[in-house]
Amino acid sequence: MSYEILSKIESPADVKALSAEQLDQLCDEIREKLIDVVSVNGGHLSSNLGVVELTVAMHRVFDCPADSIVFDVGHQSYTHKMLTGRYHEIDTIRREGGLSGFPKRCESEYDAFNAGHASTSISAALGIAKAKLLAGDPSYTIAVIGDGSLTGGMAYEGLNNAGQHKKNFIVILNDNRMSISRNVGAMARYLSSIRMQPWYRRLKRGTEHTLSKIPLLGRPIGNLLKRSKSKVKHVMYRHTIFDKLGLSYYGPVDGHNMEDLMNALNTVKQSKDPALLHVVTKKGKGYKYAEDDSASYHGVGSFNVDTGEPISSDKNFSAVFGEKLCELAETDQRVCAVTAAMRTGTGLMDFSKQYRDRFFDVGIAEEHAVTFAAGLAVNGMLPVFAVYSTFLQRGYDQLIHDVSMQNAHLVLGVDRAGVVGEDGETHQGLFDVSMLNAIPDTTIYSPCYFDGLENALTTALFEDKGLVAVRYPRGGEGKKPEGYSRENIDYEICGDRDADTLLITYGRLFNEAVAARQIVKEQGGELCIMKLCRIKPIDERAVKLASGFPKIHFFEEGMRSGSVADRFRDMLDLQNYSGSYRVCAVDDAYVQHASVKNSLQALGFDAQSMARSVQQREEVSG
Amino acid sequence: MSYEILSKIESPADVKALSAEQLDQLCDEIREKLIDVVSVNGGHLSSNLGVVELTVAMHRVFDCPADSIVFDVGHQSYTHKMLTGRYHEIDTIRREGGLSGFPKRCESEYDAFNAGHASTSISAALGIAKAKLLAGDPSYTIAVIGDGSLTGGMAYEGLNNAGQHKKNFIVILNDNRMSISRNVGAMARYLSSIRMQPWYRRLKRGTEHTLSKIPLLGRPIGNLLKRSKSKVKHVMYRHTIFDKLGLSYYGPVDGHNMEDLMNALNTVKQSKDPALLHVVTKKGKGYKYAEDDSASYHGVGSFNVDTGEPISSDKNFSAVFGEKLCELAETDQRVCAVTAAMRTGTGLMDFSKQYRDRFFDVGIAEEHAVTFAAGLAVNGMLPVFAVYSTFLQRGYDQLIHDVSMQNAHLVLGVDRAGVVGEDGETHQGLFDVSMLNAIPDTTIYSPCYFDGLENALTTALFEDKGLVAVRYPRGGEGKKPEGYSRENIDYEICGDRDADTLLITYGRLFNEAVAARQIVKEQGGELCIMKLCRIKPIDERAVKLASGFPKIHFFEEGMRSGSVADRFRDMLDLQNYSGSYRVCAVDDAYVQHASVKNSLQALGFDAQSMARSVQQREEVSG
Repeated sequence: MSYEILSKIESPADVKALSAEQLDQLCDEIREKLIDVVSVNGGHLSSNLGVVELTVAMHRVFDCPADSIVFDVGHQSYTHKMLTGRYHEIDTIRREGGLSGFPKRCESEYDAFNAGHASTSISAALGIAKAKLLAGDPSYTIAVIGDGSLTGGMAYEGLNNAGQHKKNFIVILNDNRMSISRNVGAMARYLSSIRMQPWYRRLKRGTEHTLSKIPLLGRPIGNLLKRSKSKVKHVMYRHTIFDKLGLSYYGPVDGHNMEDLMNALNTVKQSKDPALLHVVTKKGKGYKYAEDDSASYHGVGSFNVDTGEPISSDKNFSAVFGEKLCELAETDQRVCAVTAAMRTGTGLMDFSKQYRDRFFDVGIAEEHAVTFAAGLAVNGMLPVFAVYSTFLQRGYDQLIHDVSMQNAHLVLGVDRAGVVGEDGETHQGLFDVSMLNAIPDTTIYSPCYFDGLENALTTALFEDKGLVAVRYPRGGEGKKPEGYSRENIDYEICGDRDADTLLITYGRLFNEAVAARQIVKEQGGELCIMKLCRIKPIDERAVKLASGFPKIHFFEEGMRSGSVADRFRDMLDLQNYSGSYRVCAVDDAYVQHASVKNSLQALGFDAQSMARSVQQREEVSG
Repeated sequence: MSYEILSKIESPADVKALSAEQLDQLCDEIREKLIDVVSVNGGHLSSNLGVVELTVAMHRVFDCPADSIVFDVGHQSYTHKMLTGRYHEIDTIRREGGLSGFPKRCESEYDAFNAGHASTSISAALGIAKAKLLAGDPSYTIAVIGDGSLTGGMAYEGLNNAGQHKKNFIVILNDNRMSISRNVGAMARYLSSIRMQPWYRRLKRGTEHTLSKIPLLGRPIGNLLKRSKSKVKHVMYRHTIFDKLGLSYYGPVDGHNMEDLMNALNTVKQSKDPALLHVVTKKGKGYKYAEDDSASYHGVGSFNVDTGEPISSDKNFSAVFGEKLCELAETDQRVCAVTAAMRTGTGLMDFSKQYRDRFFDVGIAEEHAVTFAAGLAVNGMLPVFAVYSTFLQRGYDQLIHDVSMQNAHLVLGVDRAGVVGEDGETHQGLFDVSMLNAIPDTTIYSPCYFDGLENALTTALFEDKGLVAVRYPRGGEGKKPEGYSRENIDYEICGDRDADTLLITYGRLFNEAVAARQIVKEQGGELCIMKLCRIKPIDERAVKLASGFPKIHFFEEGMRSGSVADRFRDMLDLQNYSGSYRVCAVDDAYVQHASVKNSLQALGFDAQSMARSVQQREEVSG
């Protein structure tokens, strides 16, 4: 495809200059480009395909960057990036040094606020709008939020505060009936009931109405509504939840009809109150495979455009976690699974079908998920909350306050622990160990292999007490070293016991450590390796063993502050350890998007870096 | 007062046996006792006075502990404690070794779930109810939540999930129009609109109705409603926000009318759907001073019952913070203040009056508060979010994701940092340093004196960048040592420079360190003290100075994991420090309620413990 129109868009001004026909072609070209780029680079496909017309319409009606568009999550911002001077860089998206897959202020003045996690846009947009108001700046601020993000409590906190802001503040509700999987909860059912009301159904049929009669129910517009006192107006006027919360509701409008969209956006622009425009879209719109199964095409790796098949599909930790949990649920009726809208990503699809009664998708609501699970636990169930490391940050207070303090037995399946690659800084799983280490009496496992995960999950459920986390990285396991059979639950030591240097690590970095030892050996050196699986509490026997080595080098794929390395050192102190102790961890910095391999290398966690590092002449001792 | 009836209540069964007249007397006696106890021990007065009748009615209608009552926050559970076998211990409440001021499962089987922070009850109750359902247990689960707690997004996450639970699940909305201060936001205005509708107003006048006609609008009850098709029924039926979210709304009902309450509770018991009962109460009911100013009597120290005057009212850090912020806001129009329903507690009352445009009380919504403030920051304002350390835990993800990652300049006023005393484990401010230390590029100040706070706040606003925290303890400053004038922004060293041992600390523990040095001196020893004010980043010059001492002992009023002490040690490593290094911090344990003084002592942070500790023969070295 030549991208005849798209390739000439340098800024939103160029979008404004197009004819209606050209706009349609632009949308087609954008879709083509989205499929093309994401099939190669991986990324968020379904969400981007769903908002092509909406994004184009917004850039027609609003004047960015003076007007600020805040995208919730930001996984739907690719079109926005292409229309705001970044088309020629779009092939670099999610690649090292290239565009981010999410909005970033440092990337463009058109990105009003950084994003990555859900439900933040209304709060951020309110802050921006209030700052404008205080400065006398009359420009608009628009939050674009999906119905999935509306399951997060933070969005409600934003809505609860939005009414106080009087003008030039617009929430666009992008309602695709989906979170990543099908959306859940009462709000989703409620939105569905709005979509089903008669006015909207008639619009969809597209026969009885002209554009001047678009059913913007929150405010009567068009001649028809101005003249008549229609029943619908009376029933719906000021009766949506959003109206009750102080926003003027407009909609619903077909999110793939460009004229309807522009008309609606122009109308809400005139609103004297904070407005909410309900736009109905189809996730994955325009790509058959994504339309049929938008969950699978939500965030994807590279895939074959013609068949929709992913290019690699090795077994991964999430799948092993899900399978093992099914097995344990079969043997014990108390085992439950909780997810915050990550049924597919955390490997719980089979569980959700086999144990429907004991499966709970609570929406993008990590706070609720943790405390709900604690409620299950104190009344005798064995809940497991499967959650990405980065999203666990949302439930920190609840882990302390609702789980740990009352010693409720909750098992966390912490997926995507460690660096995650192309999703970049907002999605790195680098804080969970630091967070959990500070919580009293917590148990944490960080296995390296599938069997280690299975073993840890079983132990966590049936032998441990209180808050227990089992954490594992994105992707698959590495190749076990020769002669290595099953992973121990606590620790193990391997390599040259007489070596001067002990390399300690946990999780998948063990693979790198084994390769590092090979490098050291080839260079005539010796290296001993200690691999921890349970990283809290640390095994005293492991510390005793370690204290026999003159030099210890700890490699940790997580933040330096709150590290396991620091606690290990405390325990070495109790052994009067006087050797050298060095730590390599993520030290007070964020990790940008790049492949996992390159990220590990940049952080000094690959075999070569490890080998170089342990062979360095000691300059630092503790 | 003799507490004739109350003193004989051993369990809820005894409440069930009372006559209507005796119930009234019971309520009077409870109020008397509440005022009596809280005036001596301090505690939450207004919230407890508001729910006396409601709590008695619940124990009449439900059968605890089979039925589970989950109190939100739990600061309204004193009556519940007295009616469930703990009357004879109530004088010990909030005292060391005595009853907790919040529900605790380890204290009584009648406490269904621990609490302390807001907005958790619906989630917890749903978990409990679901566990009961899975076990075939038909008992009830009741969440009691204030309208203030309903401003927290987590409560909405719970509501969004409540509809899926079909029976025996009841939310009681205790609507007193207050958070700690007057409640804010759209939901509060909405509840007010319900209270103002005609049926409720007529009930309040109490003239036209008999009990059989109580206006339970969600479901038509009573003969009147059954027979008539009243307008009210049509307007309200299925039209409250709660109905739209899948709960059946009942109410509003007068929360101080025992018969109305019992009637209403018996009605919601029959609901086939999850039910929400709207109860209208008056915070502080029955104590003039608390009714007139319930915010001031929300959480109080001991006070004079006759005059309502607090017994001590020394100047505290919160007040100094508030005054200084007003001063800075006067000189710079960009300075804003954000609070999550803690206007009074964080010292912002004057600010809220003097700079109304730049003051934002967002409700109990720490997540929103952080991201909203970030929105203000990226558009040129200078926001300060004043928040208790313990509640900052709610905004952890937002601090990382919405502030730090995009380098938004947000200043945190972290109040109640360190141990807080009688509120106990749920309110200790022991995690903030650990949390903030792990966030890249954060600056943290922990001053010891008022002038240090003022200095740090000014520097944080006008010289620093990105995320900056200024943390300070509950209460007042200590007496400065002789010859000590103004507190340095970075660090200072005092005492015997030639001593073997350097004691390092920060924040208010410096007071104890100075006293410890006095003790050591009196015993013929020497001690040098290093006081840090900026604890992140640590000053390299301070580390260099410290490295000259053979023994270093670091005292830190916070969690061991993620401590400043660990980072200080890292930096000593870079100086090739080979002396001994010991740390005293809060090591993997919670701190129960007791006076601040006794808590510090129990943790080894008082002068005596410090002196003993630094004089110990070295047995451990690093």
